[in-house]
Amino acid sequence: MTTKQLRNLKHEKLQATSSWMDPEQRVILNVGGIRHETYTHVLKKIPATRLSRLTPNLANYDSVLNEYFFDRHPGVFAMILNYYRTGKLHYPTNVCGPLFEEELEFWGLDANQVEPCCWMTYTQHRDTQDTLAVIESLDLDRDPPTEEEVAKKFGWEDDYYSHSLNWWQRTKPRLWALFDDPNSSKLAQIRSYLSVIVVLVSILSFMAKTHPYFRIPQITVIYETGVILENRRAAIGAIKDFTQPWSHFFYIDAICNVWFTFELIARLFFCPNISKFLRSPLTIIDIICTVAYYIDLLLHAILLQAGSIVTLDFLSMICVMRLFKLTQHFSGLKILIQTFKASAEELGLLVFFVLLAIVIFAALVYYAERSQLNPDNQFTSIPTGLWWSLITVSTVGFGDMVPKTWLGMVVGSVCAMMGVLTIALPVPVIVSNFSNLYSHSQARSKLPKKRRRVLQA
Amino acid sequence: MTTKQLRNLKHEKLQATSSWMDPEQRVILNVGGIRHETYTHVLKKIPATRLSRLTPNLANYDSVLNEYFFDRHPGVFAMILNYYRTGKLHYPTNVCGPLFEEELEFWGLDANQVEPCCWMTYTQHRDTQDTLAVIESLDLDRDPPTEEEVAKKFGWEDDYYSHSLNWWQRTKPRLWALFDDPNSSKLAQIRSYLSVIVVLVSILSFMAKTHPYFRIPQITVIYETGVILENRRAAIGAIKDFTQPWSHFFYIDAICNVWFTFELIARLFFCPNISKFLRSPLTIIDIICTVAYYIDLLLHAILLQAGSIVTLDFLSMICVMRLFKLTQHFSGLKILIQTFKASAEELGLLVFFVLLAIVIFAALVYYAERSQLNPDNQFTSIPTGLWWSLITVSTVGFGDMVPKTWLGMVVGSVCAMMGVLTIALPVPVIVSNFSNLYSHSQARSKLPKKRRRVLQA
Amino acid sequence: MTTKQLRNLKHEKLQATSSWMDPEQRVILNVGGIRHETYTHVLKKIPATRLSRLTPNLANYDSVLNEYFFDRHPGVFAMILNYYRTGKLHYPTNVCGPLFEEELEFWGLDANQVEPCCWMTYTQHRDTQDTLAVIESLDLDRDPPTEEEVAKKFGWEDDYYSHSLNWWQRTKPRLWALFDDPNSSKLAQIRSYLSVIVVLVSILSFMAKTHPYFRIPQITVIYETGVILENRRAAIGAIKDFTQPWSHFFYIDAICNVWFTFELIARLFFCPNISKFLRSPLTIIDIICTVAYYIDLLLHAILLQAGSIVTLDFLSMICVMRLFKLTQHFSGLKILIQTFKASAEELGLLVFFVLLAIVIFAALVYYAERSQLNPDNQFTSIPTGLWWSLITVSTVGFGDMVPKTWLGMVVGSVCAMMGVLTIALPVPVIVSNFSNLYSHSQARSKLPKKRRRVLQA
Amino acid sequence: MTTKQLRNLKHEKLQATSSWMDPEQRVILNVGGIRHETYTHVLKKIPATRLSRLTPNLANYDSVLNEYFFDRHPGVFAMILNYYRTGKLHYPTNVCGPLFEEELEFWGLDANQVEPCCWMTYTQHRDTQDTLAVIESLDLDRDPPTEEEVAKKFGWEDDYYSHSLNWWQRTKPRLWALFDDPNSSKLAQIRSYLSVIVVLVSILSFMAKTHPYFRIPQITVIYETGVILENRRAAIGAIKDFTQPWSHFFYIDAICNVWFTFELIARLFFCPNISKFLRSPLTIIDIICTVAYYIDLLLHAILLQAGSIVTLDFLSMICVMRLFKLTQHFSGLKILIQTFKASAEELGLLVFFVLLAIVIFAALVYYAERSQLNPDNQFTSIPTGLWWSLITVSTVGFGDMVPKTWLGMVVGSVCAMMGVLTIALPVPVIVSNFSNLYSHSQARSKLPKKRRRVLQA
Ligand SMILES: [K+]
Ligand SMILES: [K+]
Repeated sequence: MTTKQLRNLKHEKLQATSSWMDPEQRVILNVGGIRHETYTHVLKKIPATRLSRLTPNLANYDSVLNEYFFDRHPGVFAMILNYYRTGKLHYPTNVCGPLFEEELEFWGLDANQVEPCCWMTYTQHRDTQDTLAVIESLDLDRDPPTEEEVAKKFGWEDDYYSHSLNWWQRTKPRLWALFDDPNSSKLAQIRSYLSVIVVLVSILSFMAKTHPYFRIPQITVIYETGVILENRRAAIGAIKDFTQPWSHFFYIDAICNVWFTFELIARLFFCPNISKFLRSPLTIIDIICTVAYYIDLLLHAILLQAGSIVTLDFLSMICVMRLFKLTQHFSGLKILIQTFKASAEELGLLVFFVLLAIVIFAALVYYAERSQLNPDNQFTSIPTGLWWSLITVSTVGFGDMVPKTWLGMVVGSVCAMMGVLTIALPVPVIVSNFSNLYSHSQARSKLPKKRRRVLQA
Repeated sequence: MTTKQLRNLKHEKLQATSSWMDPEQRVILNVGGIRHETYTHVLKKIPATRLSRLTPNLANYDSVLNEYFFDRHPGVFAMILNYYRTGKLHYPTNVCGPLFEEELEFWGLDANQVEPCCWMTYTQHRDTQDTLAVIESLDLDRDPPTEEEVAKKFGWEDDYYSHSLNWWQRTKPRLWALFDDPNSSKLAQIRSYLSVIVVLVSILSFMAKTHPYFRIPQITVIYETGVILENRRAAIGAIKDFTQPWSHFFYIDAICNVWFTFELIARLFFCPNISKFLRSPLTIIDIICTVAYYIDLLLHAILLQAGSIVTLDFLSMICVMRLFKLTQHFSGLKILIQTFKASAEELGLLVFFVLLAIVIFAALVYYAERSQLNPDNQFTSIPTGLWWSLITVSTVGFGDMVPKTWLGMVVGSVCAMMGVLTIALPVPVIVSNFSNLYSHSQARSKLPKKRRRVLQA
Repeated sequence: MTTKQLRNLKHEKLQATSSWMDPEQRVILNVGGIRHETYTHVLKKIPATRLSRLTPNLANYDSVLNEYFFDRHPGVFAMILNYYRTGKLHYPTNVCGPLFEEELEFWGLDANQVEPCCWMTYTQHRDTQDTLAVIESLDLDRDPPTEEEVAKKFGWEDDYYSHSLNWWQRTKPRLWALFDDPNSSKLAQIRSYLSVIVVLVSILSFMAKTHPYFRIPQITVIYETGVILENRRAAIGAIKDFTQPWSHFFYIDAICNVWFTFELIARLFFCPNISKFLRSPLTIIDIICTVAYYIDLLLHAILLQAGSIVTLDFLSMICVMRLFKLTQHFSGLKILIQTFKASAEELGLLVFFVLLAIVIFAALVYYAERSQLNPDNQFTSIPTGLWWSLITVSTVGFGDMVPKTWLGMVVGSVCAMMGVLTIALPVPVIVSNFSNLYSHSQARSKLPKKRRRVLQA
Repeated sequence: MTTKQLRNLKHEKLQATSSWMDPEQRVILNVGGIRHETYTHVLKKIPATRLSRLTPNLANYDSVLNEYFFDRHPGVFAMILNYYRTGKLHYPTNVCGPLFEEELEFWGLDANQVEPCCWMTYTQHRDTQDTLAVIESLDLDRDPPTEEEVAKKFGWEDDYYSHSLNWWQRTKPRLWALFDDPNSSKLAQIRSYLSVIVVLVSILSFMAKTHPYFRIPQITVIYETGVILENRRAAIGAIKDFTQPWSHFFYIDAICNVWFTFELIARLFFCPNISKFLRSPLTIIDIICTVAYYIDLLLHAILLQAGSIVTLDFLSMICVMRLFKLTQHFSGLKILIQTFKASAEELGLLVFFVLLAIVIFAALVYYAERSQLNPDNQFTSIPTGLWWSLITVSTVGFGDMVPKTWLGMVVGSVCAMMGVLTIALPVPVIVSNFSNLYSHSQARSKLPKKRRRVLQA
C-alpha cells in the first residue's frame, strides 16, 4: 500500500467523521501538473470565487488522487493561492501584468484589490495599454486596406457584397488613396513628396519675404518739393513710404496656394465621409490657411486701391500653421502631439509651478530692488519682474534685466536655484510619456506585420 | 512496497539508532504542496526561529509521509530555506517586498539581516510605504465622511450614539463642509471656485497696481514759486511727489479682503476643533495676510493724516503668501510641498554643494581677474563674485559680470562645467522623490475607491 | 496498487474506448524533471509545433509513467505551456530574453507572436544584441592576432599553410602593426603616443597662430608720402597691410606635416588591403588634411610671388579635422561617434522638433514685436528671429536680441518654456543609446578575455 | 509494484547491459527537494565541475530512489542545469546576483562564462559591491570602538591583553577621540561644532575683507606738494596708495588660526600613528593652510618694514582650501568627493568631449565671422573663440561675445544644440555613480546597526 493510498484512507475516514467542509481539511490543487496544498478554510476566505466554491462533484475532481485539476499556469497560481492565505493581493514581478490579470479573471478575483505596494505595477501595464492604443490610433505604417475595408469606409458594404460597385465606386477610393495614403501607389508617393516640398517652400517664402534683403522700398517721387535749389530748379524728393517684398514671392505664394486649394478640393471631393473629414484638425487648419490667403489677397487689392499701406500681419501669420500639415508625413511629429495630449495634466502642473514661482520671485525682486538706493533699478513694477523671473527660472538668462542690490541678488540666486527645481520636477513625467510612446512605436515598427493565428480549438 | 515506504523504513531505523537530532538526517518540508528537503542541522543554523524548533510532535507533522506541512507560499520558501543553507538573506526579486517580509515574519526571521547587496530592495518598499503614507495624509480625493465620522470629528460621539444631536450639532458640520470640502455640495463647490477667483484677483491687483500704467502721479501744485515770468505773473509749479495706484484697486482689495475676512471668521466659527484649526499652516497664513491688510489700511490712514508718503512695502508683500491658499484646491501644489518636505535632506545637500562651489569659484575668479592688468575688472570683491559664480553655476548666465582676463576665463570655464555637475548630482534624487509621490498619487486616483473585503475566517 | 497504476489503467481504458486524440485526455509533460499537465486539445491549438505533434510513438514517451520527457528548462516551460493554454505569448521577466527565445525555438514557436504588452521586452534584447555587435566592431581592446589571422588578413593563407612565407611576407605585418596597433609592441606604443602629441601640437599651433600675440604686423614703409614735414624733409610712412603668424609656426607646421605624410605613406605601403584602407573614413580625413596642407603651401608661395595677401581660410580650417584622428586612440570618442550613428533617427527628430519650434516662435515674435510701438525693435525680420528663438529654445540666452513689447515677452516666455520641452523630449532617447553603448563597453572591459569552452558532447 | 519500482528495475537492467556512463541514461538530481532530470551526457558537457563528476559512489546518491541529493536552492539550479543543456550561462533575474554566484561556485562553474546579454547583470552587482566598499570606507556613522580596538589602533595590544596600560595609554585615546570623533563624548561634539564655526568664520572673514565696504584707504599725507595755493600756503596733498581691510579682520584671522594651530598640534600629539596621520589629505590641507597663514603674516611684517605694498594673493587664497575641512563633518561632501573619484574616467570623457566640441566650434566661428564684412567682429582669434564656445556649449551664454554674421549664427546654433548633447551624454553616467553612492549610504543609515549572527553549525 503506497503512502498516497494511506492518505486517501485517512482522508476517507476524515470524510466519514467530519463533513468535507471541515476547515482543517487539506485540499490538493493540481494546477498545470504542479500540486499545491492548502486548508479548506483558506479557500473560503474570499467568497464568491472559483476556489471558494470547490466541491468534489466538479468534473475536474479526481477522487483517486483526491485532487482538483486546473489547466492553468502553475507559477502564477502560487501568487493566487497566497492571496487566499494572507488576504493580500500582490502582483508577481516575473510575469507580465496582463498575464497575471488573465489568471485573476479565471480564478474569479478582482485586480482592484491589489495592495498599495503593487499599485505602480497595477497601473503600469494599464498605461502601457493606453500607450499602445494611442500608437494604434496613429496609423503609423498601416497595411494597405483590403477592398472590403475600403468599401466599408465609404459606406458601400451592400454594393460590395452584392458585387455591384459602379465605376465611380471603384475609382473614388483610388483617388482618395492618392491624396491620403502615400504608400498606396507610386503616384501617391510623388504627390506626398510634392506636398511636403510645397509646404516647405511656402514657409520659406513666408519667412524670407520679411527680410530687408528681399524687400524693395516703395519710393514715391515728389516733384516740386518747395525747395528751390541753387541753380533755380525745383528739387525732386523721394519718400520711402514702406517696403514691399520682391514680386517673385507673390508668384511663389500664388503657386503654393493654388496647389493647396487644389489638394483641399480634391480631398473634399474624394473623401469617404465629408462631415468626418471636415471635423479633422488637419482639414480645419488647411481650410483656415487657404481662406486666410484669399482674404489677404482680396484685402491687399482693396487697400492698394484705397491707397492704404496697412499690412495685415495676422492673416499672413496664419501661414505658419501650415507646418502642422507635415504631421501627415512625419510620425515623430504625431508622437510629439500625442505626448502633449497625454501629458495635458503634467503640462498644467508645469505651467502652474512656473506661474507660482515667477509671481513670487517677481514680487520679491521688485521689493528687494526698492529696498536700497538703486538709481539703475530696472524692476519698475511687478509685471515687468514677471518677465525677468520667467527668464531666470527657465535658466535662459538674457541679462536685459539684472538685479543691482544685495537683496535683489539674493532673490535672483534663490530664483535661479528654484528654477532648476521647478522645471526639473514635472518635466521627467512628460519625458517618460514621450519615451513610452516613442519606444513602443519603435518596437512596433521592428515587428513583422503578418502574425500567425492561434486556433481557438 | 513503494520507494516512500522504503524510505520511511530507513527513516524509522535511523530514528531508532540515532536521535531525531542527527544533523545528517534529512527533513522534508511540504510548503503549500511543494516538498523542500534539507538536513536537520541546516535548520538549526538560525536559532530561535520556527524551523529551528521543528519536532515530530507538532500538529503539522505527518508521520506517514514523514514531512511537515506549512500552508505558505512555496516559491518564497525556497529563498527562506536558502537563508538557512547559506547564512545569507537575499530578497527575491520576483515578488513584492512586503510579501517577502510577511513570509520572513511567519518563519520568525529578521528582515534586518538582509545582505548589503539587497539593501536597496529592502529600503525601496519602505520608501514606497512612506510615500503612500504621505499621499494618504494629503486627503487628495476623499470620500464624503459618514455621519458617525463627522460626529467624532466634532467630538459629539456621545450625542450621536444617543441620537440626541440638537439643531446646531446637525447644522454646524454642514456649514463647516461648505467652507472646507468643495465636494460636499453644489454650494460648497461654488464657494470653492469663488475662493480661487478672489485669491487670483487679489494677486493680480497686487501685481498690477505696481505698474506705472495703473499709477496716478500725485502732483502738488505750488503757486508763487518765486520765479517771476516775463509777463510779470508768478509761475505755477507742479511737483510730482509720488505716484498712487488707481483708486479702483483700493475697492478691489477691499472686496477681496472682506471675502477673506468673512471666510476666515466663518471657518473659525464652524471648525470642529479651534485649537487644531489655528495651528494649521494655512490658517496661520490666512490670519497673517488678513491682519496685515488691516494694519496696512490703518497705517496708511495715519500716515496720510501726518502728511507722510512712506509706503510700507513689507505689509503689502505679505499678500503673495495668499498664493499658498491655492494648495487647498490644487493637488499638484500639495505634492510639490510634500516633495520639498520629503527631500529636506537632499535640498540641504544641493544648497551645500552650490555654496561650496560658489565660494570657491568666487575666490578663484577674484584673484584671477586681479592677476593681470585689467582696467574693466568687474570682480571688485569676493562677495560680488558670489553672485557671478551662482549665476554661472546655475547656467543662467546673465552676462552682467564677465571675466576679462585669460585666467578669469579659465576659472569661468571650469565654473560653468562644474555647475552642470553640482546641480545635476543632487537634483535627480529630489526629482525621484517627486516622481514617486506624483506617480503613486496618479495610480491611487485611477483605482476604484470601494474595495471588496477579505474575510478573516 | 498505486494511484499511478490506477490512473494508467484508467488511461488504457480510455485509449481503448476513445482514440488518443480525445481532446479531454490529459497529457503529462516531464520537462527537466518537473511534471506539467494539460489537456491534449490545448496542445493542438498552435499547429505545426513540437507539442502539437506529440504521439506515443516518440522516443521520449515513457509508457510506464505515461509521460513525455523533454530535457529543457522547466520554469520557462510553464510560460510556453501557458501560450498554448491562453493563446497569448508573454515573455517571462525572470529569465534573460535570449534564453527564452532559445526555448521558443526548441518548441517550434515564433517569437514574433509576442503580445503587445511584451514588445518592449522583445525588442530590448534585440537592441542589446545590436549594441554588443557595435561594441564588438569597435575593436576596443583586441587580443594580439595570431599568425594565421595575420596571414589571412594579408591574403597569404596559401603561403602560410605551405610554410613558404618570404622575408617581406614576414616583415610587412610587423611594420603594419607598428603603424596600426599600439599594443603590438613597445615601439608601436611610442609611435602611437608620438602621433597623439603631433596631432595636439598641430591643433595648438593652428589655434595659436590666429592670436594677435603670435602675429607680426607686415609693415610696408613708404618713402616720400607726399606730406612735407615742417623741417622740409619728406615723411616716411608705414602701412600695416596685414599680419602674419610668427615664423616659428611655419616650422612647427612643417614638422607636423612631415610626420603626417610619413605616417600616411607608411600605412599606405604596409596596409594589408589598399582599396579597403583607402575607403576608411580616417584615411580619407588624413589624405584630405595632408593634401590641403601642401596646396596651402603652394598657393601661399604663388600668391606671395604675385604680391597678393589673400589668406585661404578654408584650407587651413581643414586642419581641425585632424582632431578626429584621435578616435584611433580614445575609445570614448569611438563610442560617441557610434552613438550618433545609432541615434541618427533620434537626432533627426531633435533637429525637426527644434526647427519646428524656432520657425513658429520666430514668426510669432516678429509679429509680436511689430504689434506695438517699439523703436528699439531688434526683430527686423523672421530669419533674424530664428537666431533668437534657437538661442532661447536651447536656454543659452545670449541676450543680444531681446523682445521689448508685452506681446513679445509673452512669446519669449512660451518659447523659453517650450524650449525646455522640445529638447528634453528627444535627448533622453539619445542619452540612453550612449549609456547602453558605454555601460556595455565598460562591462566588457571588466570581463576576463580568455573564456573556457563548453564541450558540445 | 509502483511506477518508481518499475523504473528502478529498468534502471538496474540498463546498468547491467550498459555502463552507467551511457550518455542516453537519465539522471535524477534532487536539489533541495525538487527533482530535476536530465541525460548523463548533458552533465559531461562542462568538464571538471561537480555535476560532470557524479558517480553512484557519492554519499549523496540514494540508490533506492536512484537520485542524487544536493542541499541547494532548487530554483536557481534550473538555471545551472540549463547552462549544461544549452552551453550558455544566463543570469536569472529573480534572484540577487551574489546569490547566483554563490550557487555557481558550489557547482564549480565560472561566472566569467556569462553570455554577453547578461554582462550588465554580471557587472551590476560587482559595481554594487564596489559602491558598498566605498561607503564602508567612508566610516559614515561608526559605532564607538571597543577598548580592544582602540588599543590595537594605538599599537598597544600587548599591554592591553596583559592589563598593564599606564595612565598615558588610557588617557591618550580619550584625548584623540575628543579631537577626532564628535560622537565620542559631549565635549567632543562641542569641539566639533566649534571647529565648523571657526572654519566658517575664517572663510567669511576671508571673503568679507576683500569688499570695499570693509577696507580702509591707506592715505599718505604729503606736506609741501610744490603747489602753492592762492593764499600762499603750501598745499597738503593726500595720496590713496592702497586699501587695507579693517583691523578687526586681523584679530578674527588671528583667533581662527590660533584655534587651527592648537587643533593641529593636539591632533599631531594624540594621534595613534603619526606617519599615517601626516599622509592623510585633510592633515596636509590643514598644515598647508596654517603654514601659509604664518608665512603671510611674516612676509606682511617684512614688507611693511620695507615700505612695500605688494599683497600676496596666492597665500591668502590658500584659505579657501579650509572648506574641505568640512568633509569631516558633512557626509554629503564625502559622497561628492567619492563620486568624483569613482567617476574619474567619465569626468575625463566629459572634459574630452567638451574640449573636442569647443575647439571645433571655436575654429568654425572664427572663420565664419571673417567670411563676411563684419566691423564688430568679436572673434579676433581662435583662442578667444574657445571661451565663447565653452560658454555656449555649457548653455550659460553670457552674451559678452556674440556672432554677428549669418554663417557665425549658423555655427552658434549648431554649437548650442551640440552643447546640449555633449554634456547630456556623459553626465548621466556620473549622476548614476552619485545616486548609487547616495542611495546606498541612505539605505545603510536606515538599517539597524546591530545584526544577529548566523551560527555556522
Ligand atoms: K544667458
Ligand atoms: K543660459
